[in-house]
Amino acid sequence: MPVLQAEQLRTLGESIFVALGAPEVEARLVSDLLVEANLTGFDSHGVIRLPIYARGIKMGAVKPGSEIRVVEETPSTAVIDGGWNFGQVVARFAMDKCIEKAMNSVVGLVTVHNSQHVGRLNAYAEMALEHDMIGVMSVNSASYVAPFGGKSRQLGTNPLCFAVPAGEEPPMVLDMATSVWARGKIMVYLARGEELPEGVFMDPEGNPTIDPSWYTGGGVLRTLGGIAGYKGYGLSLLVEVLTGVLSGAGCSNSDEYRSRPFYGGNGIFMMAIDVGRLTDIGEFRGRVDNLFRRVRGSPVAPGFDEILIPGDPERRMRERRLREGIFVEERTWGEIVTLAEELGVDVPVGL
Amino acid sequence: MPVLQAEQLRTLGESIFVALGAPEVEARLVSDLLVEANLTGFDSHGVIRLPIYARGIKMGAVKPGSEIRVVEETPSTAVIDGGWNFGQVVARFAMDKCIEKAMNSVVGLVTVHNSQHVGRLNAYAEMALEHDMIGVMSVNSASYVAPFGGKSRQLGTNPLCFAVPAGEEPPMVLDMATSVWARGKIMVYLARGEELPEGVFMDPEGNPTIDPSWYTGGGVLRTLGGIAGYKGYGLSLLVEVLTGVLSGAGCSNSDEYRSRPFYGGNGIFMMAIDVGRLTDIGEFRGRVDNLFRRVRGSPVAPGFDEILIPGDPERRMRERRLREGIFVEERTWGEIVTLAEELGVDVPVGL
Repeated sequence: MPVLQAEQLRTLGESIFVALGAPEVEARLVSDLLVEANLTGFDSHGVIRLPIYARGIKMGAVKPGSEIRVVEETPSTAVIDGGWNFGQVVARFAMDKCIEKAMNSVVGLVTVHNSQHVGRLNAYAEMALEHDMIGVMSVNSASYVAPFGGKSRQLGTNPLCFAVPAGEEPPMVLDMATSVWARGKIMVYLARGEELPEGVFMDPEGNPTIDPSWYTGGGVLRTLGGIAGYKGYGLSLLVEVLTGVLSGAGCSNSDEYRSRPFYGGNGIFMMAIDVGRLTDIGEFRGRVDNLFRRVRGSPVAPGFDEILIPGDPERRMRERRLREGIFVEERTWGEIVTLAEELGVDVPVGL
Repeated sequence: MPVLQAEQLRTLGESIFVALGAPEVEARLVSDLLVEANLTGFDSHGVIRLPIYARGIKMGAVKPGSEIRVVEETPSTAVIDGGWNFGQVVARFAMDKCIEKAMNSVVGLVTVHNSQHVGRLNAYAEMALEHDMIGVMSVNSASYVAPFGGKSRQLGTNPLCFAVPAGEEPPMVLDMATSVWARGKIMVYLARGEELPEGVFMDPEGNPTIDPSWYTGGGVLRTLGGIAGYKGYGLSLLVEVLTGVLSGAGCSNSDEYRSRPFYGGNGIFMMAIDVGRLTDIGEFRGRVDNLFRRVRGSPVAPGFDEILIPGDPERRMRERRLREGIFVEERTWGEIVTLAEELGVDVPVGL
């Protein structure tokens, strides 16, 4: 059961991607962001993806070094063709462009097609924070989620992410699937042989199930909301419109999307809003701090210890894993080691 | 048990507001939108508000005819002071401005402070549809919702609304509270003496309850999401930031908001996105139609008859109530009749 330091994994990932032909700067960025996902506790978006990305590169579906083009632009918007480069490289480029547009026009809006998997969205939405902007990002992805009232896979887990700058308080970073849970969480329960809670999952006939083994048997995720699951469904449809239709990337349930050989990729929608040109930035910071402090300080319900602000759990996990290292499960580690050896890359020694 | 035709209620409402000193055009608009809420099935936002608005006007908190000012603007954005006019008048003005900004800059973004209650958000987000734009609107309001893990009223029901143009399919109109349910639904259960479903409501000690009578005893709504209620909570906080902080209107849980004599009003955030300048509008329409048709046509889960697109239920209810009339409960009707008689306004005869 290897435990590795973040820096060990970063170097390993970078070396693997370079050995696969990626430019150094891209290799470093992608590896960094995978390890960041592990650090913040999202192992499903972490180094577990290294062998998957490697397979994508080998089959020519993921194209390191390929040109990212701005197909159309206005002072406030850009439409970007990611050239099927790493999603991380594409999304980073796109958010830089989006921030530039917001500097011009207070609001920047960017859509992207032909992007591979971007990983966790927070990494890009948070880029806006350094510029005192609110960052917004959403993607669609392979369909695993049923519409409300349905039982077949029509929608991606379709996350929405919002990053909001604060003053002395840490920023708020909300990064949420519009399904009850993201896919990765089902995988974790499956791996651990644990039963799911009610309300998360269905078998392919649309019957509620707590058995995670349906994951490999055509199981279907439900949309966020429980008895108000039509709301999560509505948000998920909205994400399809913004990231699949408006971007031209294709919807999760389209033939176009499903016929792609490797992974359908992420259609991307992003926005940046320059706070200081809509209100006094100092006042904004103070009011956000006030809001967060009042909410944090409000009375706690039975069964809870504290009230958190979105982003708190990830920040805490990151501090802990920077100290204690990152646990990589045997199977993933085995795949990574095999890949590294095949490419002649040095493998660090875990604890 | 009076049942009235929409046009009867429109005329009645208009006459009442005119008698209370509102300019005719404002009186007509506000009355129209209240009746639209009844038509679409949202009685909690319908003519039940007539006596409440009247009280607001009499105490000088709602200011018909007052000037709505653009305090700051750029080619893409505007900050608006609603002058405490009717929220409907303010929001209509603001969305017109937002659409104008989107015509300039592809994306328009408008915030509003000093607005009274705007009613249902769909009325404004849908204005974007006529211009082939996506409309976005959100407001905060008096706090009735606990943060995830909390038990006190810190957040408004904080709705989000999105209107998306389609081609031959009807547009999608998602208008959802970020609490499990909106307040009005609890009121209806209370009025009918029915038990609530699990997961919606808490008593003031934070214990889950199915007893709607806590509504008048300090009961607290829960945020959307059930076991993932931290997501609805995150969205609700985001709404506070956009509509309470960015707009300068004040957060639901702020002293400023709570100290207002009548009703805290609605802080407003809105956006319009001009689709045709980001992608081909014909292609967009076709892809949205495709998405909606595939989802609608996908297999139905046990216990369901069909899969709907957000906006369908309201459209159906509207057709039905245009035919069958609008039922107004005795108590509301009594209050309206008293008000009309006091103002010397003719009262129509219901069925």
